[in-house]
Amino acid sequence: MRPTMKDVAAEAGVALKTVSRVVNNEPGVNAATAERVRAAIERLGYSRNESARVLRQGRTSSIGLVIEDVGDPFYSGVSRAVEEVAIKHGSLVLSGSSGEEPAREKELVLTFCTRRVDGLIVVPAGSDHSYLRAELDAGTPAVFVDRPAGPGLDVDTVLCDNAGGARLAVEHLLARGHRRVAFLGDSPAIYTASERERGYREALGDLVDERLISMAQPSLDGARAVLDRMLGMDDPPTALFTGNGRCTVTALRALEGQRIALIGFDDFELADLLNPGVSVVAQDPAGLGRVAAELLFRRIAGDVGPVERITQPVRLVARGSGEIGPTGMPTG
Amino acid sequence: MRPTMKDVAAEAGVALKTVSRVVNNEPGVNAATAERVRAAIERLGYSRNESARVLRQGRTSSIGLVIEDVGDPFYSGVSRAVEEVAIKHGSLVLSGSSGEEPAREKELVLTFCTRRVDGLIVVPAGSDHSYLRAELDAGTPAVFVDRPAGPGLDVDTVLCDNAGGARLAVEHLLARGHRRVAFLGDSPAIYTASERERGYREALGDLVDERLISMAQPSLDGARAVLDRMLGMDDPPTALFTGNGRCTVTALRALEGQRIALIGFDDFELADLLNPGVSVVAQDPAGLGRVAAELLFRRIAGDVGPVERITQPVRLVARGSGEIGPTGMPTG
Repeated sequence: MRPTMKDVAAEAGVALKTVSRVVNNEPGVNAATAERVRAAIERLGYSRNESARVLRQGRTSSIGLVIEDVGDPFYSGVSRAVEEVAIKHGSLVLSGSSGEEPAREKELVLTFCTRRVDGLIVVPAGSDHSYLRAELDAGTPAVFVDRPAGPGLDVDTVLCDNAGGARLAVEHLLARGHRRVAFLGDSPAIYTASERERGYREALGDLVDERLISMAQPSLDGARAVLDRMLGMDDPPTALFTGNGRCTVTALRALEGQRIALIGFDDFELADLLNPGVSVVAQDPAGLGRVAAELLFRRIAGDVGPVERITQPVRLVARGSGEIGPTGMPTG
Repeated sequence: MRPTMKDVAAEAGVALKTVSRVVNNEPGVNAATAERVRAAIERLGYSRNESARVLRQGRTSSIGLVIEDVGDPFYSGVSRAVEEVAIKHGSLVLSGSSGEEPAREKELVLTFCTRRVDGLIVVPAGSDHSYLRAELDAGTPAVFVDRPAGPGLDVDTVLCDNAGGARLAVEHLLARGHRRVAFLGDSPAIYTASERERGYREALGDLVDERLISMAQPSLDGARAVLDRMLGMDDPPTALFTGNGRCTVTALRALEGQRIALIGFDDFELADLLNPGVSVVAQDPAGLGRVAAELLFRRIAGDVGPVERITQPVRLVARGSGEIGPTGMPTG
C-alpha cells in the first residue's frame, strides 16, 4: 500500500538508482531530473523508511529520556530543553515517566536500550543502577540528571547545588532574626530531599530541633497535621523552609493564610502573584536539561574524556514571604 | 562489544536455538535450561535488538506525539496521559513540541512517519495537513487533539467544548449582573481561541462591544496596554473573560490587584491560593490525552469504523473572582 522507491522511479520515468541518489542527497543527478523525482515523491507521498536506514548505519538517531513525571513543571522544563538540543542534533526523543518507581525506571531504561537508543538521559527513581553496566560497557552513553546514579556506576552526572541552595535559604532566614526554622521536605529516600535537609542542618547548626523537621511525600492532610503540631508548640517555628515545589504548594494550602516566613526550594509560575509573593531558591530546569543533553551528544559523537560531574548553581529570589521577620512583620 | 545470542548460548552451554526460544518465550525448553539461559543473559547483560525485531514484524511499537509545548502544564498533562495509555499497549512515545510553528509540526510528523511509528497523536499548529494524506492512505492512523485537522483531512479528532465553555463563563457573569464583559483571547489563528471567542459572542448577544475584545498572543505589555485602555473607558468592563491559561496569568499580572470580576479558560495549579481565588472553566487535559490515545490504539489494532469526532465536556469552577459583582462586591 505504501509507495516504494520503485513506484517513484516509474512515476518519474527514471532509474531506481537515480531516485536513490536524490533521496540520499548523492551527486550525479542533474537538476531537472532531481526536480522530477522530487515532484514524483511529493505526488505519491513516498516516505523513506528511516528506521531501517538508521538501523543499518548502527545509529538510531534517537535518545531515551526517563524523568520522574512529565506532568510536573520542573521535569517538563527539563524535557523541553532536552528536546531542543536533540532537534539540533537531528535526534528524536523517546521519553517516559518513572513516577518515582525504581522498577518502572529500570523497565523504561532497558526498553529504550532494546530499541538501541544512541544514549540515555536519566532522572533516577531508584538507587541501584547495576542493570545499566552492560549497556554502558556496550557503548551506550548515559547522563544522570537531578539525582546521581547508585553506587558503583561511574557515569556523567548533572546536578543542582541542593545543599548549597538549602543553606542559602536558611541563612537568609537567620539573617532576618529567625532562630526557629522548620523544614518540610519530601521523602528522605529522594536524593534531592536528603541533600536539601543536609544543607538546612549545616546552616542551622546548633539551632537544629528534630521536632521541626518533617520528611515525607507531600500531602495536604500530612502537611496540615505537621504544621498544626509545630505551630502549637510552646516555642513554635517562625519560619518555614519547604524542600521542593510540591512541598511548597502543599504547605501554602495547609497554612490557609497563616502568616509565617516561608522560603521554598524550586520556583513556580505564580509565586509572584500570591500575597505575600513567595520567596524561593530557584533552580534552572531548562539549564539542567540543556547541559545534560549537550554532554550526552558530545559522548555520542565520541568524546571519551573523564566522567563529568557538573553542579549547576541556584539563586535566591526574594518576593516577600522569606523577608517576614520573627514577629510576622516584613524586614525589608 | 555488545554480547550476542551466540555469546549467551556459549555461556549457558546450550544451542543458539534454545536461547532464541527462551528470549522469544517459545515452548520446548525445560525449566532448568531456561533458568540457565536467563542467568547467562543476566551475567552477560545481553539485550535483544528490539528495533530490528519490531521492524521485521512491520510494527515499531511506538507512536508519535506532537504537542504545542511540553513545558506548558496543559500539554504536559496531555502527554502524561498519552504515555500511560501507550505503556499499557507496550508502546513507546516519540514526542516533540511544535512551538505553534506549522513548519515544525509538519517536520515532526513526517520525521515520526519516516521512523514508521504505528500511529500519530497531533495537536496541530497549522491548518494545512494535506501532507498527511499519503501517510493515512498508507495505513498510519492519526488522532488530532485539542484542535481539528485542516480542511480535506477526515481524521479522528478529540476536542474540548470550547464554545460551550466560553458560553458557560459569560452566562455565569451575566447572571451576576455584569453587562460589560471584556474578552482577552489568544491569537485568532489558534482554533481554540477563535472557538472561545465565538462562544463569548453567542452568550453576550446584543451586549457585544468590539472595543472590549482583544485577540493576541499573550504578553504582559500587551495586556497592560489593553486593560489600561478598556478600564479607562467611560463605560469600562466590570468583568473579564480570559481565553486560556497563559492569557489568565498575563491578565492577573497586568491587573496588579485591581479588583474586577474574572473567569479564565483552563484551570491552573495555584488558582485557589490567589486572593480572590480564580474562577475558571476547567478542561481535563489528562482525559483528553487518554481518550485520544485509547482511540489511536483501537485504530492501530485494526478498528476501521467511521471517523470519530469526540467533544469532551468542560466545567465551571467558582472560586471567588468570577463571583464578584459589577460594583466590585462578592455576589455569592
